[in-house]
Amino acid sequence: MAELYERLEKYEESDYYPFHMPGHKRNKDMAGKALAEAYGLDITEIDGFDNLHQAEGILKSEQERAARLYGAEKSYFLVNGSTGGILSAIGAVADKGGRLLMGRNCHKSVYHGVYLHELEVSYLYPEILGYDMAGTVSPKEVEEKLKEQPDIRAVLITSPTYEGIVSDIRQIASIAHRYGKPLVVDEAHGAHFGFHSGYPENGVRLGADIVIHSLHKTLPSMTQTALLHVSGNLVDRRKLERYLSIFQTSSPSYVLMASISSCLETVEKEGWRLLEKLKRNREKLEEKLKECGYITVLGPEQLKGGFAGRGDICKLAVGIKEGRLTGRQLYDILRQKYHLQMEMAAGNYVLAILTIMDTEEGMDRLAKALLEIDRAIGGADKKAGSLGNGENAANNEDGDVRKEKYGRIREEGNIQRIRKPEVVNEIAMPIYRAYNKEQELVSAMECCGRVSAEFIYLYPPGIPLAVPGERLNNGLIVQIMDYAAMGLTVHGLEDGHIRVLTSGLEMEETEKI
Amino acid sequence: MAELYERLEKYEESDYYPFHMPGHKRNKDMAGKALAEAYGLDITEIDGFDNLHQAEGILKSEQERAARLYGAEKSYFLVNGSTGGILSAIGAVADKGGRLLMGRNCHKSVYHGVYLHELEVSYLYPEILGYDMAGTVSPKEVEEKLKEQPDIRAVLITSPTYEGIVSDIRQIASIAHRYGKPLVVDEAHGAHFGFHSGYPENGVRLGADIVIHSLHKTLPSMTQTALLHVSGNLVDRRKLERYLSIFQTSSPSYVLMASISSCLETVEKEGWRLLEKLKRNREKLEEKLKECGYITVLGPEQLKGGFAGRGDICKLAVGIKEGRLTGRQLYDILRQKYHLQMEMAAGNYVLAILTIMDTEEGMDRLAKALLEIDRAIGGADKKAGSLGNGENAANNEDGDVRKEKYGRIREEGNIQRIRKPEVVNEIAMPIYRAYNKEQELVSAMECCGRVSAEFIYLYPPGIPLAVPGERLNNGLIVQIMDYAAMGLTVHGLEDGHIRVLTSGLEMEETEKI
Repeated sequence: MAELYERLEKYEESDYYPFHMPGHKRNKDMAGKALAEAYGLDITEIDGFDNLHQAEGILKSEQERAARLYGAEKSYFLVNGSTGGILSAIGAVADKGGRLLMGRNCHKSVYHGVYLHELEVSYLYPEILGYDMAGTVSPKEVEEKLKEQPDIRAVLITSPTYEGIVSDIRQIASIAHRYGKPLVVDEAHGAHFGFHSGYPENGVRLGADIVIHSLHKTLPSMTQTALLHVSGNLVDRRKLERYLSIFQTSSPSYVLMASISSCLETVEKEGWRLLEKLKRNREKLEEKLKECGYITVLGPEQLKGGFAGRGDICKLAVGIKEGRLTGRQLYDILRQKYHLQMEMAAGNYVLAILTIMDTEEGMDRLAKALLEIDRAIGGADKKAGSLGNGENAANNEDGDVRKEKYGRIREEGNIQRIRKPEVVNEIAMPIYRAYNKEQELVSAMECCGRVSAEFIYLYPPGIPLAVPGERLNNGLIVQIMDYAAMGLTVHGLEDGHIRVLTSGLEMEETEKI
Repeated sequence: MAELYERLEKYEESDYYPFHMPGHKRNKDMAGKALAEAYGLDITEIDGFDNLHQAEGILKSEQERAARLYGAEKSYFLVNGSTGGILSAIGAVADKGGRLLMGRNCHKSVYHGVYLHELEVSYLYPEILGYDMAGTVSPKEVEEKLKEQPDIRAVLITSPTYEGIVSDIRQIASIAHRYGKPLVVDEAHGAHFGFHSGYPENGVRLGADIVIHSLHKTLPSMTQTALLHVSGNLVDRRKLERYLSIFQTSSPSYVLMASISSCLETVEKEGWRLLEKLKRNREKLEEKLKECGYITVLGPEQLKGGFAGRGDICKLAVGIKEGRLTGRQLYDILRQKYHLQMEMAAGNYVLAILTIMDTEEGMDRLAKALLEIDRAIGGADKKAGSLGNGENAANNEDGDVRKEKYGRIREEGNIQRIRKPEVVNEIAMPIYRAYNKEQELVSAMECCGRVSAEFIYLYPPGIPLAVPGERLNNGLIVQIMDYAAMGLTVHGLEDGHIRVLTSGLEMEETEKI
């Protein structure tokens, strides 16, 4: 039973009259149809409905249910997204001035947590796969860093990645625990893990101390809803709860919480069956797409060497071989011509999120559209002409046809650019110091060697290319300008300019370090 | 036009298929009826729907509309409640180690901001009115403090209070500006101000630099929705925006934002008419309640001396004279017998929130219930017997009847306790220092003289009685135990115990100061 949802529904049908917040008074007169029903569930902390920040009744039992489902010792409903959970988790595992060992491919909320709690950081660089995609974090690297840097207080990694690539949490947790350090897993994209053997196990059961799940990303729950799970004795739970009550509104939405309640119910009762159905639908889709010449579903084979991780069925990365189209172009065609809205366009692939709520009709539309686009860019010819030849066929045969059909295509050819793991940004000073210094706006082309004063990132997925305090190198600047040229939204790039520390300041600081 | 709401509704009716978050895919199969319609509006940052954290399209124009309506230079939609706005505003106006001059009756989110940003504080103590209610902040006191303490960086006050009492923002803003300091007004309970001459003007138009409005408290908008307005040049807007993007989820809910859009539409098109209607309904209600002997609507007359502020029609505080019932008892009777759910029970009054969405039927039910309760506790006799005598009638005549009807009534008589403004807690150390020190749980009765390690507050309204770093005095402990005995929820009191700094630590610290 979706206890909270059902109790709210029942309450709405009662004759209780609200002389309390919210101000709409569950009166549906002024609200549009699509909001009116939700207003009926939208109450405040009145008798019988508990208080999220001191749960003792129905919210306690609903949170206990989440803990049971995911195998955690304790779980918390989050209404400020995974963001609120990440900020709280970081505060709970590392004190001011402490050092956090974190994946470089973490979401910007992790960097925000590092800034707020004034931490030093050491980065784990995931391998870079084909198609410029971040891969897994290496357990070996975790162990090396923990050995080298005894001042590390905790480990935080993102798994699965935005593209569904899963690191070896069991091994990383075991290494972290050997050094007495808690492991926090930002499993925002893996809330559906652990409910079906065809999908990865969830981080809680693999031994992570804190795991954060965005319910809305891959499960049927409203945007902004998430869960935080905590287990073991390496995390100060009082501190965790303190931060959860600081970073989340004191008036949490019962509509969002009802949505969590309803989502847990679906997962518990129907999860396995729906995940099984999704798995089969995806297999069918992949089978159909095998006919394509240029369009390809990115899996271990396409992403090449070192892809040790496991992919998640819920993430469908569709790549385009040989720069036949950019990711942005494929994204636009799918949207404009076929009314299929993708989650994200990357340099040379697009990303679709598949969930247990997808319909067969929707999946069919996607397959048909991709097959049609592939034919239009010469995929059938390629397929016929390159049997056994694979990736190396020539790229010039029907450029004119493509241009005519889909507008200007980047002439530079294949836009894949694999960022070498060894090309890392030099850290000139900690984020919290740099972020509060005097800054100026400088043309990106003149920023080489300067220290960034802002976060620079693509959204989605919101993973920083540079963070405050890092020295901008030439390779990075070219990459940023390249993304912008491809039509991707680069946050932190303002009309071709980047915020850097005022000249002089950076020198002074760097010398001190 | 509620632009965002309507565009979302139209989009839902289109044939666009979502291969993106959220995971419910606007598929209503698994959701209960009351959530299903909202799921239809629940999208993510796809093309045409802008990005709250870098608004350039529809969210920019919707925020501009909010700014126009309230008279601000710039306004921001908030989806983590006023909480997210408060934490951000504090970060924008005061740097680490700076001093904030704040109302002692501020909401705990303000104290949380002080903790996170590591500020020193000086308090403004509002006058204490009859019925133990916090009154206005005195402009004179603001001026004195600013003169005495030149290290104050900004002023932050709450107006209206939870009970609707409004301070003189125009004068306080003008004083703050004379000293070159920004004024932040937590006007969470005043989002309906400034749209009708029968209600107070809003803080933006009275000169405050930052004003935060909870839309859901008194307007028809969903819980967790709020606005932050900024004007003038005393606030660092880049810093403000930085913190807004830190303290709010990177996946803001389009349902919450659609609700804001719809709310602004109602206010713009129907605001005056509905506020006028509410004003008349309240006048009618007060007229009817004049028949009561013990039950009384608290206004300037009942709250006595020094009530310089203006009351807000949206807050109806219903007091009980002579301790005839406690606030909690009246609250319970209204809820259990009449199915009228109040916002809050205080020591000797209850608080109802009235809004433009209240129905006449609801207001009538309240009037009838209060009249009936008043008769049951002997109000008619009192009224007949005490004409011209008012507050001083004897209190013993029908105690047995009352006890029989409503259970045990506190024998101590009148439970009003007016906390003298001069009884203030001694600050042993700043919040951010105390909150991270070693602590122990000690029986409240043995806490006198010890330094609090936690926030102690009633919720609602969430205004601290003690904060970390303050020395607990006897008067305060008696008050805390009193509230608990009255059946009010005292956060920070755990089974009669309070968290205090470990003995010894506090001494050491206090001596240093």
